[in-house]
Amino acid sequence: MLTVSEALDRLLTAARPSTATQTLPLAQAHGRIAAAEYRASVDVPALDNSAMDGYALALPFDAPLPDVFPVAQRIAAGQVGSALAPLTAARIFTGAPVPNGATCVVMQEDCDADEHGLRLKPGITPHPDQHIRRRGEDIAQNSVLLQSGEQLDAARIALLAAGGIAEVAVHAPLRVTLLSTGDELAEPGTPLPPGGVYNSNRPMLLAMLQALGCEVIDGGMVPDRRDATEAALLAAAQQSDVVISTGGVSVGEEDHVKAALQALGTLDLWKVAIKPGKPLALGRIGKADFVGLPGNPVSAYVTLQVLVRPFLRKRMGAHQLAPTVWPLPAAFDWPRPDKRQEYLRAALTPAGLQLVGQQGSAMISGLAGAHGLVEVPPGQVIQPGDTVRFLPFTS
Amino acid sequence: MLTVSEALDRLLTAARPSTATQTLPLAQAHGRIAAAEYRASVDVPALDNSAMDGYALALPFDAPLPDVFPVAQRIAAGQVGSALAPLTAARIFTGAPVPNGATCVVMQEDCDADEHGLRLKPGITPHPDQHIRRRGEDIAQNSVLLQSGEQLDAARIALLAAGGIAEVAVHAPLRVTLLSTGDELAEPGTPLPPGGVYNSNRPMLLAMLQALGCEVIDGGMVPDRRDATEAALLAAAQQSDVVISTGGVSVGEEDHVKAALQALGTLDLWKVAIKPGKPLALGRIGKADFVGLPGNPVSAYVTLQVLVRPFLRKRMGAHQLAPTVWPLPAAFDWPRPDKRQEYLRAALTPAGLQLVGQQGSAMISGLAGAHGLVEVPPGQVIQPGDTVRFLPFTS
Repeated sequence: MLTVSEALDRLLTAARPSTATQTLPLAQAHGRIAAAEYRASVDVPALDNSAMDGYALALPFDAPLPDVFPVAQRIAAGQVGSALAPLTAARIFTGAPVPNGATCVVMQEDCDADEHGLRLKPGITPHPDQHIRRRGEDIAQNSVLLQSGEQLDAARIALLAAGGIAEVAVHAPLRVTLLSTGDELAEPGTPLPPGGVYNSNRPMLLAMLQALGCEVIDGGMVPDRRDATEAALLAAAQQSDVVISTGGVSVGEEDHVKAALQALGTLDLWKVAIKPGKPLALGRIGKADFVGLPGNPVSAYVTLQVLVRPFLRKRMGAHQLAPTVWPLPAAFDWPRPDKRQEYLRAALTPAGLQLVGQQGSAMISGLAGAHGLVEVPPGQVIQPGDTVRFLPFTS
Repeated sequence: MLTVSEALDRLLTAARPSTATQTLPLAQAHGRIAAAEYRASVDVPALDNSAMDGYALALPFDAPLPDVFPVAQRIAAGQVGSALAPLTAARIFTGAPVPNGATCVVMQEDCDADEHGLRLKPGITPHPDQHIRRRGEDIAQNSVLLQSGEQLDAARIALLAAGGIAEVAVHAPLRVTLLSTGDELAEPGTPLPPGGVYNSNRPMLLAMLQALGCEVIDGGMVPDRRDATEAALLAAAQQSDVVISTGGVSVGEEDHVKAALQALGTLDLWKVAIKPGKPLALGRIGKADFVGLPGNPVSAYVTLQVLVRPFLRKRMGAHQLAPTVWPLPAAFDWPRPDKRQEYLRAALTPAGLQLVGQQGSAMISGLAGAHGLVEVPPGQVIQPGDTVRFLPFTS
């Protein structure tokens, strides 16, 4: 039996980052993995500018404050004013460059202006540099905005755009074919035969893999015959980077996937000390990787999230592989831990993390109400108030 | 000045849920909002079944344990066995229905079987119902799997499929046209003119709105002329449910959006006690809603996340409108709170929430490193260890 971290090590050792890249306009690169480093082409802000709507003053701070400042010019965002003579003012708007000679900005609420000029309201004494944003104070020209292997979210896209970057080289999406095995599986919407089970893995894993950024091909159900299994695996391998199947990798199961893979390529069958979960297969057919998930949907969900997601992210070129883990307080009791590392379905409430639904490996109902998983190391008892590792469900 | 909650109330009062729906196969409904309630068509599991690979025993628990059980049949997943005679066994696999007459299941590891039958290993004494999953224990037939207004994630898709649901009625995606205003804005990839600023709102908001599930139309830059502004707003309103613009809604700004909207439809300009943020506009043109965001990218991000997202989610038919808020410990000091409600950019670390980057409203760099926002009510001081409201960045 492999520990979770041993299984992860093996998976990551086997994962070769894909080298196919493409260049996309920034607005189309959301969620993608950068294939190059990007640096700011400009300082942000590009010039010293006003943080407020108001007036820029050319005020020498070593002299008394005058009663009135002539308003010599008007500078809107996007305009560049001319140099400001001492003791004069410029009407200025948020984001507009402060003119040469200006030493501070006063907010429009703090002064009155008429045709004679500007008067500060009683009690207002500006200080040097007040309300002036300095050139480069947000982003310095040539500073790194995005590293190769980072994922593009909305905030990082804003940062790149602000730094003048219009398009980015990203890794091509990983092509994943999903196969389902198990003659007991029936498609939802069709009558359920005696002994049958509706196939919930197929739409669940399609959704999870798409959310991970994969280009997913639904390879459908594989009939439980050796020739059909070989044909399905070969076809899947030819059109994809990774083939993922559910079911057929457990010791006692009635299945042709193992035999077909051993004939067509290579296959390692593992028992991992993870609950829900345990069986996991990793192999190759031609140029494609093969990953065999357990057939139980909750086990498949947890195994994909904890073990296979880091593998897929490395294959996609991502540098951040481990799931997000947040240390949070438990509001539950877990007195009888397992010998395997457990992943409990939990919701974050004002009192802390609470378990949701029944925690049996076969309980899909609990999964649907959870915000994420609590990782419980083998043999570890949890008491309310203990800080535990929480893996939120985010892509 | 409106408080954040007053502004939210006004936005939600104005938001009319869209009534357009469509029916999608489950696997294509990820992220969508349900437009109907769905109930399980079957019990899950549909029959009492085995939780383990092993043997089902017909063992009357009021009699002594026999030495050997004849193995009378073999039941794989998807098969239905025949009734088991007392004191006989059936080879059984995980998920296979337990035959009538079986009273428990023993794991294959706990017994030895040969042509004479099955012997339990020393010390193994089964208990009644052992390793039997009861019909309906995960999902009872006719129980509610999904309520109208709930969002479909991978776990909920699994639950629906398990309950026999093949397709779901969902709200049609909200069509949103995004317009940018501000003559100082330059497109990334083009030279930056003196006084210019690269437009980071446009790709950032396109990404955020797509992640929210909107069908986003990029309406581009609106030239700073009254006729062009009116034409752009009218065209946008005709093709969309909601028109969102950035810039042009602040008091001192040089802009034609306000005048054009007041001429073409209706417009309310608000000052909201939110930081970053403050100006926000809500109006209508024809059948479309109009939302005017502040021009500063960090203000636009926070305003969209905190105020406009609930409005859009109500428009989409969602029931859960407020952002996710998690009560978490602060690992930072915030000694000088503002009069406005603040949203600080923060990362969750093993020590608790830490502020990232500079917290100035214009600092895009800090936004890009954050995991979410800490909500600081007006005037509230924060000390390390205080529990604060954290809004994680998730769609």
